[in-house]
Amino acid sequence: MFYLLDLLGTLAFAISGVLTAMNKKMDPFGVFVIAFVTAVGGGTLRDVLIGRTPVGWMLDLNYVYTIIASFILAVIFRKKLEKLRKSLFLFDTIGLGVFTLIGLEKGLDTNLHPIICIALGTMTACFGGVIRDILCNDIPVIFRKEVYATICILGGTVFFALLELNLPINIVYLLTPAVIIIARLLAVYYKLSLPSLERK
Amino acid sequence: MFYLLDLLGTLAFAISGVLTAMNKKMDPFGVFVIAFVTAVGGGTLRDVLIGRTPVGWMLDLNYVYTIIASFILAVIFRKKLEKLRKSLFLFDTIGLGVFTLIGLEKGLDTNLHPIICIALGTMTACFGGVIRDILCNDIPVIFRKEVYATICILGGTVFFALLELNLPINIVYLLTPAVIIIARLLAVYYKLSLPSLERK
Amino acid sequence: MFYLLDLLGTLAFAISGVLTAMNKKMDPFGVFVIAFVTAVGGGTLRDVLIGRTPVGWMLDLNYVYTIIASFILAVIFRKKLEKLRKSLFLFDTIGLGVFTLIGLEKGLDTNLHPIICIALGTMTACFGGVIRDILCNDIPVIFRKEVYATICILGGTVFFALLELNLPINIVYLLTPAVIIIARLLAVYYKLSLPSLERK
Repeated sequence: MFYLLDLLGTLAFAISGVLTAMNKKMDPFGVFVIAFVTAVGGGTLRDVLIGRTPVGWMLDLNYVYTIIASFILAVIFRKKLEKLRKSLFLFDTIGLGVFTLIGLEKGLDTNLHPIICIALGTMTACFGGVIRDILCNDIPVIFRKEVYATICILGGTVFFALLELNLPINIVYLLTPAVIIIARLLAVYYKLSLPSLERK
Repeated sequence: MFYLLDLLGTLAFAISGVLTAMNKKMDPFGVFVIAFVTAVGGGTLRDVLIGRTPVGWMLDLNYVYTIIASFILAVIFRKKLEKLRKSLFLFDTIGLGVFTLIGLEKGLDTNLHPIICIALGTMTACFGGVIRDILCNDIPVIFRKEVYATICILGGTVFFALLELNLPINIVYLLTPAVIIIARLLAVYYKLSLPSLERK
Repeated sequence: MFYLLDLLGTLAFAISGVLTAMNKKMDPFGVFVIAFVTAVGGGTLRDVLIGRTPVGWMLDLNYVYTIIASFILAVIFRKKLEKLRKSLFLFDTIGLGVFTLIGLEKGLDTNLHPIICIALGTMTACFGGVIRDILCNDIPVIFRKEVYATICILGGTVFFALLELNLPINIVYLLTPAVIIIARLLAVYYKLSLPSLERK
């Protein structure tokens, strides 16, 4: 079930990449690469930094197939995706929760400090979008106005707080993405965003 | 002979980096770094993602010497490079073929799935240029109008088709770059390019 | 003492990241990430390329704490940092010397050729700034007009020259950053910079 949610998140991230790349008038190869890095770029960066190589998607082809399918679907239905906006937003939010949890888990597996694990969770969920924006020659959107990353950090903190309480690991694994998903839905509902730091 | 073609491709890629960087009015250090990443950036990314570290150019100094020589030659003869345009295009095309083959080979060595090997071949040949464009603050040219990458994917597919036919490995190693080189020459001759995907 | 200078350099690099990011009107998360990559991006790239993973800052939390402290201090005192310009420039220059030395040392540890070690020293000291500029959507400043990197290459060359002279290692470790620091102070004092390479 967890694995399916992971692939659902991959699908949503890949489609968001397709949409961004098409807005930049890229050719099919460019659109595919952007879809790819949006979906697995965060996890790839995490794997490289902790030394888990070959990186994840090279060993589990299901991610690659999911991205290829997302690419084809998004290109074919590109004029109708607007109508799926709500579903896509929901899948994207599920991806945010699941990807953060996967990053936290890999950090624990590698015996890293909780602070580093939280950084890895946030990286897994958010840095695919950062790489997408760099390849599209934009300043990463999560550096400017999104609470996206802050919610992942919150989720990571909740994760370690729950572990401290000695809750069963299954419960912790369910609650962490749930907290992230609920926090993001609330943030979007109440239009929360971080203020920019300027030197007036 | 194969190794010499590899260094010839490195030379052509490095010179293309020098030209791009000079158009951006960079200083000599910037020009050198851009030449360097254009030439070995794709292979470096590949090595990092599959975990072959220290990466290739750190262990075989001939790449570094070739790039230093290309840098010096390109800077000295910068006003005359226009006349060498055809030779440079030929070397660049040889590089495309040889680099793709090297990427395919490293993927096989690491026991990765054919799809991943093809991705590694394409990455080796094309992503030096992607890193060059990012460092120069441009949207990567191969995402917009080049058939460059598509030809590498074609070459990789041919490679595995030939392996399936149980052709001797030497023949496969000769035919794969040949197919890529011919496909590119044809593509440029007939001015082929991929259409951009837009949401009208 | 050496370790303290390293953290002082980290502090100066992080603060320079905070200032750059605030000029781009980023939100606190963006400012923090930019501070982080400016401070440890060069060393992270080095560690990834030579295969020392998990990368340095994941194993020694003092870098993370230093960056968090720099971030908080720089944000709180953001309107008064102008007055500390000279101190910050000094810390930054110390960082340049110490970071280069650390890169040289890791290269030697990994049994790499002196040319590669010098590249690693320069990368450690200078490429945090390169990653910062890419994330901020600028052409890296050290590719355009800074002698910054050239001084690191000079420092690396001096390092191996001193080793050739069979000087005690402690003396070499003291002289190398000293040469870099003095060279930079002189370069800034005499307003040296590299000419840009243009094709007239």
